[in-house]
Amino acid sequence: MATGRLVEVYLDLLSQPCRAVHILLTCAKIPHRVRTMALRKGEHRTPDFTKLNPMQKVPVMVDDGFVLTESDAILKYLATKYDVPEHWYPRQPERRARVDEYTAWHHTNTRPHAAKVFILEVLLPAQSGSLVDEARLNRALSDLNDTLDKLESMFLRRQPFLCGDDITVADLLAACELTQPLGGGRDVLKERPQLQRWRSRVQSAVGEAFDKAHAVLYALRDRRRARL
Amino acid sequence: MATGRLVEVYLDLLSQPCRAVHILLTCAKIPHRVRTMALRKGEHRTPDFTKLNPMQKVPVMVDDGFVLTESDAILKYLATKYDVPEHWYPRQPERRARVDEYTAWHHTNTRPHAAKVFILEVLLPAQSGSLVDEARLNRALSDLNDTLDKLESMFLRRQPFLCGDDITVADLLAACELTQPLGGGRDVLKERPQLQRWRSRVQSAVGEAFDKAHAVLYALRDRRRARL
Repeated sequence: MATGRLVEVYLDLLSQPCRAVHILLTCAKIPHRVRTMALRKGEHRTPDFTKLNPMQKVPVMVDDGFVLTESDAILKYLATKYDVPEHWYPRQPERRARVDEYTAWHHTNTRPHAAKVFILEVLLPAQSGSLVDEARLNRALSDLNDTLDKLESMFLRRQPFLCGDDITVADLLAACELTQPLGGGRDVLKERPQLQRWRSRVQSAVGEAFDKAHAVLYALRDRRRARL
Repeated sequence: MATGRLVEVYLDLLSQPCRAVHILLTCAKIPHRVRTMALRKGEHRTPDFTKLNPMQKVPVMVDDGFVLTESDAILKYLATKYDVPEHWYPRQPERRARVDEYTAWHHTNTRPHAAKVFILEVLLPAQSGSLVDEARLNRALSDLNDTLDKLESMFLRRQPFLCGDDITVADLLAACELTQPLGGGRDVLKERPQLQRWRSRVQSAVGEAFDKAHAVLYALRDRRRARL
């Protein structure tokens, strides 16, 4: 098979949006090649990668010379360009608008709030060797709680998935964000049966692609657990 | 004309994303009715409006019973559902992906950074009666500068509009965000000839719809100027 026929993606599976892209590629069986990037080794700051993405961020997708950044855009492009099942990103304007509505909201809610918990509980202490800043962590958990309330009472109020009756790219972005604190041993959905059921539905819908994308995060959790 | 045929939008034109929606509606001649909301009077917190949008935010669009929030989603829905010129949100996957890439980036860059300057320079002092917090304002201006650098060196590097050769909904979102500090008398593009030329191109492309959407902001600027 010619290399040109493969979608190339630069991913670090410890990054939430990278996992969402990985799950869609696997699940929808889009022929692809993963270029593994280790953010913790600074591989996103090398001259070659900076040439590819001056923003120095992952994920990056290269499809037959077309370079695209931003997971939200990559997921929607893949769903449009490749013949993936329609439910991932419905064509009907009202149903599609629901996905665009969630993803727009996601960028300033689910994403920063879940990420912050992981950053404060895992990343910063690992980088600085200092203890977790409990006051900041509590504020981050409170912001995340507000987001979880909204996910339950608005997006999931009357439907099994965030944007309707079937799974969409919105569920992938949200689910991969909400698993991130697991890296520090924290299940943020522990007291949230409604969101747990949603997460189970997402996991069932994507099958083994979910655990495959999360293997690196689970390994991090297990290493930390073993050290305690 | 039956009311059902009009797109209804709940807007406060002092809100940047509301102006972007207003410009598209005007420019693309989509039959619509504006329900004016005054955020400063708390009209987004009334029981009726909360029923419409539990997030208590504007803009909200109602199209034949379909209620949609998030300006990003509203703009893309209007461009898809109504027969607007293709350039606003191109159908070709690569060109569309460029718009989705910018809008995803926008939510955590142009939007918060330009808004923060206005909040610190105009909103907070007006609400609290206290002076501008210069240290916080300088940090906000520095974040905004970084965003402006990226708009110039990445998005506008080799093209007249943010996502290509013609104006898209991305330009509307960005332009309406970057005008916001004008409310406090600050032109954030003053030392930025490349971005000024882009803003002129956006204004030329949308004609009088631009000033129409900005009339309330210009009036705020002029009132403040008269008081000095």
